[in-house]
Amino acid sequence: MAERVVVIGAVALGPKAAARCKRLCPEAHVTLIDQSTRISYGGCGIPFYVSGEVNRVDELQETPYHTLRDAAFFKTHKGVDVLVRTRATAINRAERTITVENVDTGAVSTVPYDKLVLAMGSSAFKPPLPGLELAGISAATNLEEAEFLRAEVAAGRVNHVVVVGGGFIGLEMAVAFADMWGIPVSVVELADQILPNFLSDGLSHMAVQDLQGHSVQVYTGEKVLRFEGEGGRVARVVTDKRTIEAELVVMAAGVRPNSELAVAAGLAVAERGQVLVDEQLRTSDPNIYAGGDLASVKNLVTGKPGWFPLGSMANRQGRVIGTNVAGGSATFPGAVGSWGIKLFDYAAAGAGLTIEAARREGFDAIKVHMNQLDRAHFYPERDLMTLELVAERGTNRVLGVQGISPNGDALIARINAVAYLLGHGCLVEDISNLEVVYTPPFASAMDIINALGNVAENILAGRLVPLEAEEFATLWQARLQGDVYFLDARAHKDAEAMVEKYPGEWHSIPQDEIAARIGEVPKDKPIVVLCNTGLRSYEAQLGLAAHGITNTRSVLGGMSSAKRLGSKI
Amino acid sequence: MAERVVVIGAVALGPKAAARCKRLCPEAHVTLIDQSTRISYGGCGIPFYVSGEVNRVDELQETPYHTLRDAAFFKTHKGVDVLVRTRATAINRAERTITVENVDTGAVSTVPYDKLVLAMGSSAFKPPLPGLELAGISAATNLEEAEFLRAEVAAGRVNHVVVVGGGFIGLEMAVAFADMWGIPVSVVELADQILPNFLSDGLSHMAVQDLQGHSVQVYTGEKVLRFEGEGGRVARVVTDKRTIEAELVVMAAGVRPNSELAVAAGLAVAERGQVLVDEQLRTSDPNIYAGGDLASVKNLVTGKPGWFPLGSMANRQGRVIGTNVAGGSATFPGAVGSWGIKLFDYAAAGAGLTIEAARREGFDAIKVHMNQLDRAHFYPERDLMTLELVAERGTNRVLGVQGISPNGDALIARINAVAYLLGHGCLVEDISNLEVVYTPPFASAMDIINALGNVAENILAGRLVPLEAEEFATLWQARLQGDVYFLDARAHKDAEAMVEKYPGEWHSIPQDEIAARIGEVPKDKPIVVLCNTGLRSYEAQLGLAAHGITNTRSVLGGMSSAKRLGSKI
Repeated sequence: MAERVVVIGAVALGPKAAARCKRLCPEAHVTLIDQSTRISYGGCGIPFYVSGEVNRVDELQETPYHTLRDAAFFKTHKGVDVLVRTRATAINRAERTITVENVDTGAVSTVPYDKLVLAMGSSAFKPPLPGLELAGISAATNLEEAEFLRAEVAAGRVNHVVVVGGGFIGLEMAVAFADMWGIPVSVVELADQILPNFLSDGLSHMAVQDLQGHSVQVYTGEKVLRFEGEGGRVARVVTDKRTIEAELVVMAAGVRPNSELAVAAGLAVAERGQVLVDEQLRTSDPNIYAGGDLASVKNLVTGKPGWFPLGSMANRQGRVIGTNVAGGSATFPGAVGSWGIKLFDYAAAGAGLTIEAARREGFDAIKVHMNQLDRAHFYPERDLMTLELVAERGTNRVLGVQGISPNGDALIARINAVAYLLGHGCLVEDISNLEVVYTPPFASAMDIINALGNVAENILAGRLVPLEAEEFATLWQARLQGDVYFLDARAHKDAEAMVEKYPGEWHSIPQDEIAARIGEVPKDKPIVVLCNTGLRSYEAQLGLAAHGITNTRSVLGGMSSAKRLGSKI
Repeated sequence: MAERVVVIGAVALGPKAAARCKRLCPEAHVTLIDQSTRISYGGCGIPFYVSGEVNRVDELQETPYHTLRDAAFFKTHKGVDVLVRTRATAINRAERTITVENVDTGAVSTVPYDKLVLAMGSSAFKPPLPGLELAGISAATNLEEAEFLRAEVAAGRVNHVVVVGGGFIGLEMAVAFADMWGIPVSVVELADQILPNFLSDGLSHMAVQDLQGHSVQVYTGEKVLRFEGEGGRVARVVTDKRTIEAELVVMAAGVRPNSELAVAAGLAVAERGQVLVDEQLRTSDPNIYAGGDLASVKNLVTGKPGWFPLGSMANRQGRVIGTNVAGGSATFPGAVGSWGIKLFDYAAAGAGLTIEAARREGFDAIKVHMNQLDRAHFYPERDLMTLELVAERGTNRVLGVQGISPNGDALIARINAVAYLLGHGCLVEDISNLEVVYTPPFASAMDIINALGNVAENILAGRLVPLEAEEFATLWQARLQGDVYFLDARAHKDAEAMVEKYPGEWHSIPQDEIAARIGEVPKDKPIVVLCNTGLRSYEAQLGLAAHGITNTRSVLGGMSSAKRLGSKI
C-alpha cells in the first residue's frame, strides 16, 4: 500500500516537504493540513509588503511566474492534497492518526498517517501586558496581520508607531514604516542592545546610529509596562522610563515554537519547547519528523541543541524531510545561524557566535574588529565595511563573524565565505588564507576577511595586544583620572588637530619616528597606541616592544572604529 | 648573527613577505631588490588607471592614506632596505649569494643571504609576430606601460584599439577603452571562447553578449598573423580571418613566470617554468622560498600542481613566506582559483573547474546551469543571476562553480560560499544545505546556490535527465531533420506564442495537465521538455516517467537560459 504522509502546517517547511516527497515517490498519498486558507507564503516578505515595496499581499504567496500557491495549485501541480481551514488538535501516536477539527464547522475527524511531518512553525510571543487587547496592536507574522498593518498606515491615521522588540522582525517593520511611509517609529527593546545575540554591543551601536539617523528612535534596556487606549484603540505605550504616543503598535518580542501538540503527544522537546530531532530530522518517534521554527537542530559551533527560526532553514529542512518520508536518506547536520538584515543606509549580517555569546557559552574568546574598504582602495566606488571575527584562545578556532556595511551584498560575500568554516572547526589561519574572489571592483588583494584572520592570529600569538575601541573610548573619557599615555602613531598632519585640541594629553609620534624618539615615551605608564585603522598602531606597538616597552595596547580599528562607535573625541 | 633575508622582486609578494618578516623578527636584516624604482604597486589596478577611474598612477602605489610605498617608505616604516634599479642576474646557491647588476651603471656586486625569497612574478607573453616592434603596441602589466596606454588615449589619437587575448587583463583593458573613453575595441582570442578555463562555453557567450552590446567586438578562434604599420606606428592587425584597423594594440595573450634565474640555479620547476614549492612555499632548495605568479602551488581540486597568477595569491602567500623566513611555521596548502571580473552591465566570477576543464582532467563530470533571481522573487530590486555548478558523477563531489550576473557583489557572495568547499572534497549535498545568508533584500529562502545543489543531486541520482540549453538550441534548429517531440510544460498563456509560431512542432501540455493528457504524448520519440526555468519541466519529466515515458530530457534553465545564450527561437 502507498505510504500516507501527513504534514501539519503549510507555510514554508510543510509545502516543501510535501512537494519533494511527491516528486521522489509519486505513489505516496501526501496531505497538507493548515488552519488557514493562505498557505505556502513567504512570511519574511511581510515587512516589504507593509512598506509597499511589495505591491499585493498575494505576491508573497505566488511563484516567480505569478501563479498563486493555493490548495488547488498543490493539488494540480504537485499532486498534494490540502485540507485548509483545518486545525490539528491531537497526535495519536499509538494508532498513527491525528485528530483534526474544521475551523468553520467545528466538525472533528481523524486522519491516519504512516509518516507525520510537524511543520507548525512559531508564533509571535505576546507578553501578558495590560492593554494588549486594544485595537491597533498587532504582531507581524502572518498575512492577515500584514494586511491589517498596511491598511492602517495607508489610511493615514497613524502618526507614530511603536515597535516592541529590536530583533529582525521589529527592525524590519521599523524601517518599513519610517523609510517608505515617513512615519516616525520608536523601538523599545528589553535587552541592553538591539539584535542581541546577533551583533556585538559595538556593532549594534552602529546599527542604532543608522536607525536614529532615519527617524527611528531606539530605546534599549527598557521595559514596556502597559498600553493605554482611547475609545478602545491604543494611544500610548508606557515603559519603565517614558510614555510614547502611538496609534499603532507592532509586537515583535520574539517568537515561540508552536509545539503544544508535540508536547501533548509526549515527543521530546528542548527547554523552550522546540521539538528535538536527529540528523534525519526525526523526532523521538521515528514515524514523526519535525523542522523549521518548530524544531531544534544542532548548533554546529557549540555542539549543543540550537534554534534557528529562519525561512531559509525551513526550506532546506523541508527538502531533507521530504526525501526521508519518501524513503530516502538525507541529513541536516545542523546550522551555524547565518543571518542578514537591511536597515536604511546599512545592512548587517553574521554567522556563528558574537563575542558576548561566545563568552556566555564558556569560550575563552577574543574579538577582532576591523574597518576596511570593500574594494581595492584605489577603486573609486567603494564603501567602508566593518567586520568582527570571534575566535577561541588556545585552539585558534573561529567561532563567529558579524559585520555592518552600506553594501549588503559585499558584506554577505564575506559572511558566506566564513559560514561553512564555522561549523567545521576551522582556525584563524584558514581565514588568513581564505580564497575569496579578488578583482579591484569587488575586493582587495588582501581582503578584509583575510586581514581579519591575520589580526586574530597576531592577537592569539600575543604579538598584538589589542584595545577594543569601546574600551579606548572609556579610557579616554577617564583620562584625567587615569594615568594612561595616549600615543597617536599617524603622520603628523593627521594627528595635528588632536594634539592642538588636547595639549599634553594626546601625543603624536608617527610610527616611523618611534625608534628615533623612543626617549619621549614613558616607561612607567600604560600606553595606548592608535592610528586610523589599527595597522600602524600595531607596527608602533612592535617598535616599542623592540625597545623594551611592552605595557602597550593597540586600538583595534583605530580612529575609524572609535568614531563610528560615536566616541566623542 | 641576525638572519639576512633577501627578496628578489618588490611588486606584490616581495614587499608583503619583507614587511611580515620584519614585524615578526625585528632583528632580521631584510633587503628587497627590484630593477624598477616603482615598487609595491597594485598591478591589478592598471586597467582602472588606463580607464581614468583611478586618477593618478601613483594611487596604485599608495597606502589607503595616500603615502607612497617607495623605497624610503619601506626603510622608515617597515625597516626594510630596498635596492631599486637593481637586477638580480644569478643565484649562487652554494655560497648563498645572489649576483646583482645596477641597471644604470652596470656595476656588478654580490648580496649574501641566509634566506632568499623569489618574487619575480610574471611577464606578458609576447608571441613572436611580425611587426611586434611597431610603436603603439604594448602590454599592460607594469606602470610604465599603464602610463603609455593612458597617454595614448588621452592624446585623442586613438580611434580603434585591438586587444590580443580574451583573458582577464585583455577584457579589463577592452572595457577600460570602450566604457570610459568611448573607443571601439576589438578583442582577438586564439581559443574558441573568451576566458577559456574560467567560464564554460555557454557562460562565455553571455559575457560576449555584454561586451558586444558595448562596442567591444569579440573574435574568438582567430589567430593574429602580423601587425602592419605606417611610419613606424601600428595601423592594422592582420588575423587569419580579417584585417582590423588599430592605432593602439594591447598584448594580453597570457603571462609567463619570470623563472629564468630559478631555472639557471637548478631549482625544480614545472612544465611551463613555474617554480615548484611545498606547503611552506619552499623551493627544492630549503633556503629559498618562492610564491606569487612565479610559483606553482597545489590545485586543491585536482591535487596536481596548479598555477594561479593573481594579486590576492601573491599577498596571502607573501605573508606565509614572511612568517617562515622569520623562523615561524605557516603553510599555504594550495588553491582552487577563485576569480572575478567586472565587464559592462555584468560581472563574472568563479572558482574551481569549468565543465570543460573537469572533463579534460579526466573527471566524469556534469554541469548544472541555472538562472534565478538573486533576491526573494517578490523583492522589487533584483537581478537574474546565472550560475553553473560542476560535479563528479559517482562521488557527487563538487568541482567548480562559475557565474555571471549584473550584480557582481551578489554573484561573489555565492562563489565565496562555495570556494572553500571545493578544496575540501565536499559533496553536492553540502551545497544543498549550504548556509548562506538569507533575508529577502539579498537572497532567496531557497537560494540559487542551494537550488543548484538540489538540481545536481537530482541529476546525479538519475531522477532529472538534463538537456543543456546549448544542446536544446542545436536540437531545435535541426527539428525538421530530427524526430524529437518538443513539449512546453508552461501554462497555456506562456506557451501560446510558440505554438502559434511553430504549429505541429511546438506542443503545449502544461505540467499540471500531463496526467490527464498523457495520451497525446508520443511513446516512440525522444521528448524534450521545457519551461521557463527548469523546475516545471523537471516535474513534467517525473510525471511522464510515472506513466512509463522515460525517453525524456528536461532543458536546464529552460527558456530563460536558451534566450540568454542567444538562441533564435
